[in-house]
Amino acid sequence: MSPASAIAIREAERGDLEAIVRLHEEDELGTHGDAWTPETRPAYEAAFDAIARSPENSLYVALDGEEIVGTFQLTFIPNLTGRGALRVKVESVKVKAARRSGGIGARMMAFAEEEARRRGARMLELTSNKTRRDAHRFYERLGYARSHEGFKKRL
Amino acid sequence: MSPASAIAIREAERGDLEAIVRLHEEDELGTHGDAWTPETRPAYEAAFDAIARSPENSLYVALDGEEIVGTFQLTFIPNLTGRGALRVKVESVKVKAARRSGGIGARMMAFAEEEARRRGARMLELTSNKTRRDAHRFYERLGYARSHEGFKKRL
Repeated sequence: MSPASAIAIREAERGDLEAIVRLHEEDELGTHGDAWTPETRPAYEAAFDAIARSPENSLYVALDGEEIVGTFQLTFIPNLTGRGALRVKVESVKVKAARRSGGIGARMMAFAEEEARRRGARMLELTSNKTRRDAHRFYERLGYARSHEGFKKRL
Repeated sequence: MSPASAIAIREAERGDLEAIVRLHEEDELGTHGDAWTPETRPAYEAAFDAIARSPENSLYVALDGEEIVGTFQLTFIPNLTGRGALRVKVESVKVKAARRSGGIGARMMAFAEEEARRRGARMLELTSNKTRRDAHRFYERLGYARSHEGFKKRL
């Protein structure tokens, strides 16, 4: 197991897809019902391709050697408010359960921030389920203000 | 002044831009510093063009006759979680101050939901500043669950 400083981050490739979904599958909240099965695989592949096609979305993986130990997605959102400031939504942030609290999440968030600056964004935003209190402390330590309520409606 | 049922909703055009920014300008929270001036106009125009170019973003206006009385933006986000479910972020929702509590916001949110379904999305999401308590009750009445904390970081 390498220290967080040795973790590499790169854009996800199609061959990473099963490992990424497995990270979401082990999520204890599990409200999204994620599981990698022959039945669900086509939907994940279609979503991966939609992300890959979109110039405004990028999916990343964090690697310890060959092993995928984390993932996150960035969505760049052109927006009028804030005098036309480009925003970045950080989405689907996940670190392998066995590797949490080891600095991998902080590495991923630092990468997200660098990438946001590089592409000219002036605001990073994310939402986190109200039950994930450790995650909230983590984001606050990184300088995020818990200023908003996050609402969701399933269709 | 027409009843909310007579409000029309359509995609914004470049000629609507000043009226849209004026809606954000009258926002009492004002944390975004929005104002339509000769200095800020180029940035708004660039952001409008970026939204117009993006297949994943659509900006709308609500009209009472010729008058723009509301605005909102939809961002369609391809995503792996939820078995590859497409999400829609509802953003920059604003109703003209003099016309609030008249059903315009509900009309806009119903339009957003129809459009989300039409494009195959399975989740709507939005964030709202913690101080906007009336807005929170409004979203809860429309069936949104206040399940998440919303974090922001300015760069």
